Amino acid sequence: MEFSSKLLENAVYEMSQLPGIGKRTALRLVLHLLKQPEDRTTKLARALDAVRKDIKFCSQCHNISDAEICEICASPKRDRSLICVVEDIRDVMAIENTSQYKGLYHVLGGKISPMEGIGPHDLNIASLIKKARQGETKEFIFALSSTMEGDTTNFYIFKQLDGLDVNISTIARGIAVNDELEYADEVTLGRSILNRVPFERSLKAN
Amino acid sequence: MEFSSKLLENAVYEMSQLPGIGKRTALRLVLHLLKQPEDRTTKLARALDAVRKDIKFCSQCHNISDAEICEICASPKRDRSLICVVEDIRDVMAIENTSQYKGLYHVLGGKISPMEGIGPHDLNIASLIKKARQGETKEFIFALSSTMEGDTTNFYIFKQLDGLDVNISTIARGIAVNDELEYADEVTLGRSILNRVPFERSLKAN
Repeated sequence: MEFSSKLLENAVYEMSQLPGIGKRTALRLVLHLLKQPEDRTTKLARALDAVRKDIKFCSQCHNISDAEICEICASPKRDRSLICVVEDIRDVMAIENTSQYKGLYHVLGGKISPMEGIGPHDLNIASLIKKARQGETKEFIFALSSTMEGDTTNFYIFKQLDGLDVNISTIARGIAVNDELEYADEVTLGRSILNRVPFERSLKAN
Repeated sequence: MEFSSKLLENAVYEMSQLPGIGKRTALRLVLHLLKQPEDRTTKLARALDAVRKDIKFCSQCHNISDAEICEICASPKRDRSLICVVEDIRDVMAIENTSQYKGLYHVLGGKISPMEGIGPHDLNIASLIKKARQGETKEFIFALSSTMEGDTTNFYIFKQLDGLDVNISTIARGIAVNDELEYADEVTLGRSILNRVPFERSLKAN
């Protein structure tokens, strides 16, 4: 693409560095900003700058937070004996939206992935082990995605927790509520049958 | 969506104001920036700020430019008797990419669209008429999109140029090169036949 302006070219280049945004989309976005009032762009630029510079991570669960300790970790209503281990903040938001969980979280910040050069030491695993050793936690719930990387990470942490007096569970995998059995994949359906729950318990969940 | 941080919420909100970017995508983009080195975000914010504040429009053709007069208008190699009328800067870039056009441009900045509240006075039409009156231009080539708004705009300008000694043409509409006739829509195919060109001329174009 040949640009008639260096400023434009630079803005389009920086915008196209974002994931899933190509040069054409970036140009469309920048031209949109040029048509909007100037403070639209100023606000966007300031908000991005602020979030990058001033963002804090909760010292206990590593969730994104404005304070030293996030609202969830600081809440007296939360069950401190239960810790749900997740990949990133979006998973915390997804679980919080269900209103079904009253324990704490531990955000790993990713999964072990040799392909992307992410090892155990790039993740918040050491602090998880430390929490387990302190003895306040009764159960860790693994809620990572069920990919090879997720499974590897689960297994690595499981091994690290070996010998400590703490329960370890993973979230249930199975057919989604409202899904038809005939369209489900075999692995999920197989797990659904293996990990069946007593009928009375399924009544309670509704 | 419930955010654990006001800074994050604000950045996601500002990002989701861009066209085609929803809250989920915005969150994904902001979290991506948080994982990147800080200067990635700083550069993006600065580039957006700079393009919005310091962008200039060429005083002759209204194309985006870093200087008072854009490179195309300033070039002595360009045919000053020919002006191609386009909607926005993306059209200039598209035509420049063909390397088939050596005249100047005139960027309207949009199309007449009563639905969106855009009238002739919101577009760079007055300066176009002024150029036509100065008499240096021999031909205007209309290259607006062939929608109702584009046709309306073409017709409005055509009426305004009435009585002036200047040729007016529009770019050819027809079946795209390499397209199969059987899949073409009737209107385009019909125009293709009505506006057929002498065979020798089509040889020269290749």
